[in-house]
This record gives sequence, C-alpha cells and structure tokens, in this order.
Amino acid sequence: MQFSKLDDINALCRDLPEGDSHAADAAAARQQVLTKPPGSLGRLEGLAIWLARWQGREKPRLERVAISVFAGNHGIAARGVSAYPAEVTAQMVANFSAGGAAINQIAKLAGAELKVEAIELDRPTRDFTAASAMDTDEFLRAFDVGVRSVPDDCDLLAVGEMGIANTTAAAALCAALLGGGAERWAGRGTGVDDAGLARKRATIEAALDFHRGILAEPLRVAAGMGGRELAAIAGSVLAARSRRIPVLLDGFVATAAVLPLAQLAPDALDHCRAGHVSAEAGHRALLRELKLDPLLDLGMRLGEASGAAVAILLLRAALACHNGMATFAEAGVSGRG
Amino acid sequence: MQFSKLDDINALCRDLPEGDSHAADAAAARQQVLTKPPGSLGRLEGLAIWLARWQGREKPRLERVAISVFAGNHGIAARGVSAYPAEVTAQMVANFSAGGAAINQIAKLAGAELKVEAIELDRPTRDFTAASAMDTDEFLRAFDVGVRSVPDDCDLLAVGEMGIANTTAAAALCAALLGGGAERWAGRGTGVDDAGLARKRATIEAALDFHRGILAEPLRVAAGMGGRELAAIAGSVLAARSRRIPVLLDGFVATAAVLPLAQLAPDALDHCRAGHVSAEAGHRALLRELKLDPLLDLGMRLGEASGAAVAILLLRAALACHNGMATFAEAGVSGRG
Repeated sequence: MQFSKLDDINALCRDLPEGDSHAADAAAARQQVLTKPPGSLGRLEGLAIWLARWQGREKPRLERVAISVFAGNHGIAARGVSAYPAEVTAQMVANFSAGGAAINQIAKLAGAELKVEAIELDRPTRDFTAASAMDTDEFLRAFDVGVRSVPDDCDLLAVGEMGIANTTAAAALCAALLGGGAERWAGRGTGVDDAGLARKRATIEAALDFHRGILAEPLRVAAGMGGRELAAIAGSVLAARSRRIPVLLDGFVATAAVLPLAQLAPDALDHCRAGHVSAEAGHRALLRELKLDPLLDLGMRLGEASGAAVAILLLRAALACHNGMATFAEAGVSGRG
Repeated sequence: MQFSKLDDINALCRDLPEGDSHAADAAAARQQVLTKPPGSLGRLEGLAIWLARWQGREKPRLERVAISVFAGNHGIAARGVSAYPAEVTAQMVANFSAGGAAINQIAKLAGAELKVEAIELDRPTRDFTAASAMDTDEFLRAFDVGVRSVPDDCDLLAVGEMGIANTTAAAALCAALLGGGAERWAGRGTGVDDAGLARKRATIEAALDFHRGILAEPLRVAAGMGGRELAAIAGSVLAARSRRIPVLLDGFVATAAVLPLAQLAPDALDHCRAGHVSAEAGHRALLRELKLDPLLDLGMRLGEASGAAVAILLLRAALACHNGMATFAEAGVSGRG
C-alpha cells in the first residue's frame, strides 16, 4: 500500500473489503445456544460477533493485540491553546519508552503490545490559522507512518495519540467537516482555563476562515488543519481495514482523525468500535455523527490510547464468554419454558 | 457476627465503620502528581481513591478478589413470572460448578475466585402474594449464609445471584420500599413475553396489598417479599462493611437486595460501587435512588455477578495506573504552563 497523492487514498476508500458475514452468522448462532437467555450479555454478544466478522473466525481470538500511539507537534501550540508547554509531547514519548505513563500500565494489564511512533517532533506542523498545517507530501508521509505501523498478524488494533495542542487541531477538523463552529467542538483538552479556551476558539475560527476554500475535501482538510499523529491514525485505520483487522478507537482526537475516512466512504469505519467517550467536549457529538456507540463512559480525557486500551478488557470479557461458555445441550440446562 | 433477631441487624447498621480518610487523602494526593493532567483518568482516579479508603492503603491491591454468587428458589415461580422453569436454578448451579457459565469465564479473566452458595434450593420461598416468603428465622439463616461467605483476607468482593423468578421478588421489594407500584419496577427479566410481564405485575401488586402492614420496615419487607439469595447478598455486603472490604454490586436483583440496608442507614453502601447498570427495567431508577453511578452500561441482564465481574477489570485498570505510573518528578515531565 503506497500513496503518492491524496487521490490514492480516495480510491482505496471506494474499494474497501467487507467483513466475513459467514463467520459473523456462525458466531451469532453460537451466542443463541450458550447457557444464558439470548441477548443477556448485552453488548458483549455484539462485540464477539463483530470480532468474528472481521477476523473471519466463528471463535475469534485476541492473541496478538497491538496498541499504536502516534505523537506529533503543532505550530498552534505557540498560541497558548494548551495548559502544557509543547515540550511535553517529547517528554511524554520518553515516559512511554520508560514505561511510566498510564498507557504502559493499561497495555500490560490488557495483554497488548504498545508501539509508540513519534513523528518528526522537531518539525511541528505550521500554524494553520495562516498556512496549511502540512503540505500534501508531509501529510502523506505521516499517513504512511500509520500504514506501515500495523503489524501483519494482528488480532486487534487500538489507536491513540499524544500531541500538545492537538485537541485544537481535532476540533478544527470537526468544525471544518461537520459545521457548528468552534463553539461546538472546542473543549478544555488537558484542562485549559477560560482564557485558554477562548484562544482555542479564536484559533479554530481563524482557521475556518483561512481554509474556507477546501472544506468540502476531507483529505485536504486533514492536511491543512490536522496533525501528523492524526494523519498516521487515519493511515493505520485504513491499513487495518485493508487487512480486515478490527480497530478500537480512543478519544476525541483519534476519532476526529478518522472522520475524513468516514466522509470518503460511509462504511469506512465498519471495522472500528469506539473504545470510550471521553470528557472532551466534542467527543460525544462526534461519535453520534459517526454512529459509533462508545463502550465506556468513564470521564477519561487523557488520550495516549488509554480509553481504547481499557476497552480491550471488555473485548477479552466478550470473547471469554463467547469461546468458553457451555451450550444448553452441553450443560444439560433447560431452555425457555 | 451473629444475628438472632432482625433488630441485631438494625443495631449493626447504626454503628458501621467508616473508611480510612487518611489513606484516601494520600491516594488523592498521589493522583495529582502522576504523569497526566489532573482528573484526566476520570472515574479510574476516584475508583483508586475509593479502594484506598476502604482498604486503608495509599496503594491498594487486588490480590485476593472474591466473587460470591448466591442461588435461591422462589414460590412465585409457579405463577409463570419467568421465561424459564424453576429447575434452571439448580441446573445453572451445576453449570457454575462445571465451569460452563458466563461468570466462570469472566471470573477467570478477572483473576477472581468464584464461590457459589446454593441456599436450600429444594425449599423455595413461599408464594409471597399470600404469605411471608420467609419467616424471620429463615431470613436470618439465609442472611447468615452471606455473612459467613465473606473471606477473611479479601481485597474486593463482588456479589451476584441466580434464582428463577427473582427479578419479580426484587421488583416487589423496590415497589414496597420505594413506591411507584409494579409498573415502575417490573421488567422482562430473562425475557418474559407480554403475558408473562402482566403476570409479574399482578404478582407484585397482590404482594403489595397482602404486605401493606409492613412496608415501613425494610428487613420485614426483605423477609416477606425477598428471597434467600437476596438475604444472603445483604448479609455479605454488611459483613464486608464491618471488615472494610470494598464491594462491587451486580445488577437489579443484587442492588435490590441491599436496598433495605441503605434504608436502615444512609451511608450503609459507602463501601459499594455499582459494577454496571443492567438492561432490566428498574435498575437504572434503583441506582438513582441509591445515588450509585454505575461503572458500565453494556445492556447486560444475566445476573450471576457477571456485570460486577466485568467491572473488576476496570478496578484493575484503575490500580494499574494508580500504583504503576511515574510521577512528573520521576519522569522529568513539565507541569502545567
């Protein structure tokens, strides 16, 4: 999979592989005969069937689970849109390497391999209030980092990010592609005060004005107002789809990153589930726009794939039941009276 | 802890031990210096602090986690209030022993010990539309099964139940103690059809009428309209409190079982968290009455502690972060700008 121009991505989005409906049907039939009232495991049943569909197995497995965290820096950080200085991006990448961050702990608990891709941290994107954040080549290079990051033999992929100021980029992307202005999409991110939130909103409004000529083109918006880590997430989610690997999305930024894919093809995220809904203001609305029903609602707003990683535990619970339970016949339990 | 009359339980509820606020404060302070924006782990932070409070440890542990499932049979099952015949209670207990049920799989995944207590399955409670389900001695005997079931050296207890027809008993208990009639509390349980739901409602209304003289006395209601497995859950939750063991509640029936305790003492459930909100109609309203905010909302409605057991995974995630993350100082990460 090589992309030398934006249209290559457009073309791939028009020709996405479907899941395996035979495996999904077999998994659904199995759920009906396990020793429980049909439907009583709620969303755990649907998750097992969803994994069956994308893995092509009646009994899916989670032997190799990958978590990819992409990191990038943002020119707009200089505008004071975050509660933290830009150098925290690199410092947190070092913290990931040293094993000290939240995602390290949750990944270990969830039995997942954590891979962190720091993308040109020394070259922040340009301030997108008065320029394109990335030119096409820069965008495609970051996208390709994501494409190449997907392990070949992966049963599940969870994607997340780290990047000081990137909730502003994500909000700009949502405002550009879904409307509603900065008011609808800007939130407090890592915890900006009222003045910081006002700066976020002003940054987004300025960007919407500057980029008004490209708002109908999702990939140009992703390049013009996004970030390298967002581009990489989109690349990895698309690459996962081409290999039928199911994906768990993390929070607001990770979901905004794949919004352009959903706009290019309405079924582009069928292989994805939202691991959680974050406390970041725009996430719930964005999930609703994408018809993604989050698995968890714990008020998390950390990023770094932490919410998606917690949701891996739910998938493990779903599969433990799906693969391990006895059937009514096996257990000698009476059916409905 | 021995109870020879209902007033012994009343007395204990007036003298409950508090949590350890020193340990809770230390845990809260630790959350402030871990490498994340304060509050960004959402409810995972509060869960770690809650465990600290009840375990009396700044860094709580989940080495020994117990899941107790209590099973009982119900005279009202003969009224056709369940989609399944009464013998399924014993058959499912056998399935638990054989390791084939959902709870077996989830308990194993969550690293918890599963204990199943089948309480006099050959002696269903009396049909409570025209009698007391249990007399005081029967109630206290079942309560005591729960008291004695709590392991001495337990870091966390999750409680659940199995009992064909017990959502009708739970709904009757809620209607008796909280008002609103059968309409508010009766749901489809394991999946009754419209005729079955009508029979449930009629059963509950008849019971409310028959027991109208005792509705102000929570423990008499628990004996008169409850079930042995509900009494045992109440006993185990009270015994856990006396030893400051934190508790995860399962679904509608398990929550209804502890409602009498909450009515005897408003802080009686401070050591409890609701593992999930089930799809059973009355559960969300009951949790709201008890000011319990559920951790999961996955549409589960199986009972057998399955929702609470999934929530154990969230507690493990909370503690993995709380105990394992680096502080800003340790990691050399800059604080807020």
